[in-house]
Amino acid sequence: MFTFRILESDRDSFARAGVITTSRGEIETPVFMPVGTAGTVKAVPHEFLEKLDTRIILGNTYHLYLRPGTDIIGRFGGLHEFISWPRPILTDSGGFQVFSHQELRKLKEEGVEFRSHLDGSAHFLSPEKSIEIQEALGSDIMMVFDECTPYPVSRKEADDSMRLSMRWAERCRNAWRRQEGQSLFGIVQGGMYTDLRKYSIERLEEIDFPGMALGGFSVGEPKDLMYEILAELAGILPASKPHYLMGVGTPVDIVHSVLQGIDMFDCVLPTRNARNGMLFTWKGPVRIKNAAYSRDKTPLDPDCGCPVCRRFSRAYLRHLFISGEILSYTLNSMHNLYFYSELMRVVRESIKEGEFRKFSEKFLESYPEGN
Amino acid sequence: MFTFRILESDRDSFARAGVITTSRGEIETPVFMPVGTAGTVKAVPHEFLEKLDTRIILGNTYHLYLRPGTDIIGRFGGLHEFISWPRPILTDSGGFQVFSHQELRKLKEEGVEFRSHLDGSAHFLSPEKSIEIQEALGSDIMMVFDECTPYPVSRKEADDSMRLSMRWAERCRNAWRRQEGQSLFGIVQGGMYTDLRKYSIERLEEIDFPGMALGGFSVGEPKDLMYEILAELAGILPASKPHYLMGVGTPVDIVHSVLQGIDMFDCVLPTRNARNGMLFTWKGPVRIKNAAYSRDKTPLDPDCGCPVCRRFSRAYLRHLFISGEILSYTLNSMHNLYFYSELMRVVRESIKEGEFRKFSEKFLESYPEGN
Repeated sequence: MFTFRILESDRDSFARAGVITTSRGEIETPVFMPVGTAGTVKAVPHEFLEKLDTRIILGNTYHLYLRPGTDIIGRFGGLHEFISWPRPILTDSGGFQVFSHQELRKLKEEGVEFRSHLDGSAHFLSPEKSIEIQEALGSDIMMVFDECTPYPVSRKEADDSMRLSMRWAERCRNAWRRQEGQSLFGIVQGGMYTDLRKYSIERLEEIDFPGMALGGFSVGEPKDLMYEILAELAGILPASKPHYLMGVGTPVDIVHSVLQGIDMFDCVLPTRNARNGMLFTWKGPVRIKNAAYSRDKTPLDPDCGCPVCRRFSRAYLRHLFISGEILSYTLNSMHNLYFYSELMRVVRESIKEGEFRKFSEKFLESYPEGN
Repeated sequence: MFTFRILESDRDSFARAGVITTSRGEIETPVFMPVGTAGTVKAVPHEFLEKLDTRIILGNTYHLYLRPGTDIIGRFGGLHEFISWPRPILTDSGGFQVFSHQELRKLKEEGVEFRSHLDGSAHFLSPEKSIEIQEALGSDIMMVFDECTPYPVSRKEADDSMRLSMRWAERCRNAWRRQEGQSLFGIVQGGMYTDLRKYSIERLEEIDFPGMALGGFSVGEPKDLMYEILAELAGILPASKPHYLMGVGTPVDIVHSVLQGIDMFDCVLPTRNARNGMLFTWKGPVRIKNAAYSRDKTPLDPDCGCPVCRRFSRAYLRHLFISGEILSYTLNSMHNLYFYSELMRVVRESIKEGEFRKFSEKFLESYPEGN
């Protein structure tokens, strides 16, 4: 079971508010999916995710395949049962992680040979193998196995890479057994070449997937280039399917992308930045280690209703961070996820109220650029 | 404000159930106080401590004095406000930490010169200075500045050390301004020499403190030696005052000590062991990294009602621990503190019901020795 229903389309942009329905529940879009790399959204208790009403989290196939392994997760009946998370889970294909360890892998038409970053053991990942693993994980949304084209590359390299990804997408589509309501998304590649991206979209539409992801962004290209390409693709992405911009991004990225019809996001930014002491506020990011906060009795963000801002001062959060206390990672991550959750709620509401253009202009004017 | 009321005394032992009343609330005894070294019970959110109905936590003067410093904590009006913990806090005197960094300190009658383990900066701690810091921290129960006598030492060394601690205790008593209901406990020293300990108790009673702590245990001596000395002191400790056994201990230590009239405990064991993957259960400790648990679908402790045991499997807890996930520290610490909290609840109830001797015999028979 997988449906996508658009509740409201913005008159002034490609933004839309919708609902994805899976057998494990509904997901209101635009949605931000917290990243639960190894079966935990890092440093965040499940209960807090539930309090946030998080509808979907992401799991990383590469990490879970290597540890604890699909044998163990399979014995539990899947990732949901293993990690005790009954709501929807999206898994990536493992490709991104395999390709990010360049020195450890060898690419062939058939798939990718790689070595585990944990123990150096040899493994092979292919479209069929990735689907097999994701089926064992039992995720609600699976992703096709693709090559994430790096930046910058020549047009020829981007073309070759995209065409390989399209052949792999078809093999994934053929391997997909549609068990237990698992859906499978295609991934658009083509680097920063809009015509290649357009070709990729057409090809994925021919193969036919219930959702369309955009891969190969946030790989080092200038922000404006990504926004520009998203604008050129906005009218071309199949309107009736959810659009997922993988690995993106900052609050500013998200607002820009929603304007271009993006419905789904995932990014390590809120949790990773939290662990590095970079906290999001409605006035921009705060580096909590800054000495200026050592005596600051005010909450991190006076406009934030999260349990961290309602209870603790900047001085205490700074003290925890400076002291390397584990609670620092937990509280910072909770705050940042709350911020992202609120941002998406406001985005959805403003779309439904026909006010998204106004909201986005105000937000993009007031929020510090590049964040 | 500080009172101690005994609700029930055990007929068959020195155990008693009581209530300490402070201006920040009541504390039922026997009580275990989680250690919040640097203003956080490591890895545990405040909310969980409140769910456990934790009535009192411990703060370390040495750590808080060095970071963030009493200047900052003082600006907040004290430690409670700085860390947002409105319930009682007990602070140690800082002596234990100063003396545990032997190479960094120089002992004189006046006090101790030491160097910060953080940055090597020079500091001086004396009875008066320790009280001054603890008053700035605003703890509900302060401890006298003492020398924690190491083990083993000669009788002469133990005697000299104890007498120094008694002189310092008197200086602390004189420095104590009794502000805002802060109470001050004396600390019995004397090493493993019972007669020296008895002299120390007499001396502290002459000086007159509202509570009596036993220091210098759990410093490497055989367990049985500690139990033996506690048994010899049990009838001598002033019955109307709370008895606090500092830095102790294991579940077995606690049950043994309650039999000898101990009312208060603190120990890093539940939280430190949690971070090392050693988890308490009613059948003894479990090393969660053990490969035997990798496919184990059962809860850590089927007899435990904590949110960790109610939601997660041993296999998931093992996976989190093996993966070094922050959530592992949090969940493990929550479970261990829940176990200690339950242990103390059962101890208190069995005393009130006149069943403590029976409970203690059963517990000490079934629980693995040395744990």
